[in-house]
Amino acid sequence: MNALDDVIDSLSRLPGVGKKSAARIAHHLLKSDDSLCERLAHDISVLHQRIHPCKICGAYTEDDICAVCGNPGRDQSVICVVEQPQDVQTIEAVHEYTGLFHVLGGVIAPLEGVGPDQLRLSELVTRIHENQVKEVILATNPTVEGDTTALYIQRILRDTGVSVTRLASGLPVGGDLEYVDRLTLTRSFRGRAAF
Amino acid sequence: MNALDDVIDSLSRLPGVGKKSAARIAHHLLKSDDSLCERLAHDISVLHQRIHPCKICGAYTEDDICAVCGNPGRDQSVICVVEQPQDVQTIEAVHEYTGLFHVLGGVIAPLEGVGPDQLRLSELVTRIHENQVKEVILATNPTVEGDTTALYIQRILRDTGVSVTRLASGLPVGGDLEYVDRLTLTRSFRGRAAF
Repeated sequence: MNALDDVIDSLSRLPGVGKKSAARIAHHLLKSDDSLCERLAHDISVLHQRIHPCKICGAYTEDDICAVCGNPGRDQSVICVVEQPQDVQTIEAVHEYTGLFHVLGGVIAPLEGVGPDQLRLSELVTRIHENQVKEVILATNPTVEGDTTALYIQRILRDTGVSVTRLASGLPVGGDLEYVDRLTLTRSFRGRAAF
Repeated sequence: MNALDDVIDSLSRLPGVGKKSAARIAHHLLKSDDSLCERLAHDISVLHQRIHPCKICGAYTEDDICAVCGNPGRDQSVICVVEQPQDVQTIEAVHEYTGLFHVLGGVIAPLEGVGPDQLRLSELVTRIHENQVKEVILATNPTVEGDTTALYIQRILRDTGVSVTRLASGLPVGGDLEYVDRLTLTRSFRGRAAF
């Protein structure tokens, strides 16, 4: 094993990077200026030191409290519940939502040994009790696990008096009825709205 | 820009890695143990220090001379000419070729300002003159530039007395006549062999 094989091996452990892509990237790094390698290596090495979960919502931040939680201009009465920290970035990129977030850190998946206790659910309940929260938007993925988790959260929040909603599920924009799966089509009928 | 955006930005500059893949990799790194980041950062940072071109053939190596050039068991009378250092690894992985290599470092591409002078051609001629080379296999890619470069090399080696051959071009194994392009089909006719 030489240094080139080492870097190919390390790169091929990353998600979505196979052996061939890893080799292509490694040769690109070798052909490029050393400063590209230095910058990339530096950025990767400081990642864990600099980034950690926000103490309130669990999204990634460099500070104690993330930019969303620390922004008084955000609607403090709405909390959007997501599975992973990256979901916060995905929703923020759309510039549609103006409330706060709460990252669960996963979904209920009994087969993988993930129960409600492993998720940040008690923190969510505490936030709702301690703040003037009016609505909780469940934005877990429209999968079996995401739906199960949403149903579970809806149940534990039933007595808190907050309005619990779920992101609409249906036909994707630009999609084609012919190619949409049966479950999505069924949902788009059940969730149909007045025109 | 925080450390997470930095690493996503750095990763998205790599070939074959878009903004979404870069974000996915960055979040994977954050979720994984810090040792994965440390190893990856280390492997990338030492790449340029450890790896450089072999003094004889131009392939990447950690030593002065690469493992192929330094192996007396290889057939010293055959030199396979390739475009890039990674082509050596591709050919070595097949375990079919037992001779030596010569890396050109590119192809003749006038539109990109690459002429014969930018390639390691004089080194090739010197190697042929100084060693008992019987055959030069031109393994540049079957593209316009690769073919042009092969033709150019064939011409400058015409008077050296070595046998100059070119890798066969034709139908890929497992391919389908119906889906093969016209140029490849034409070549497979011209290069047809006795059955």
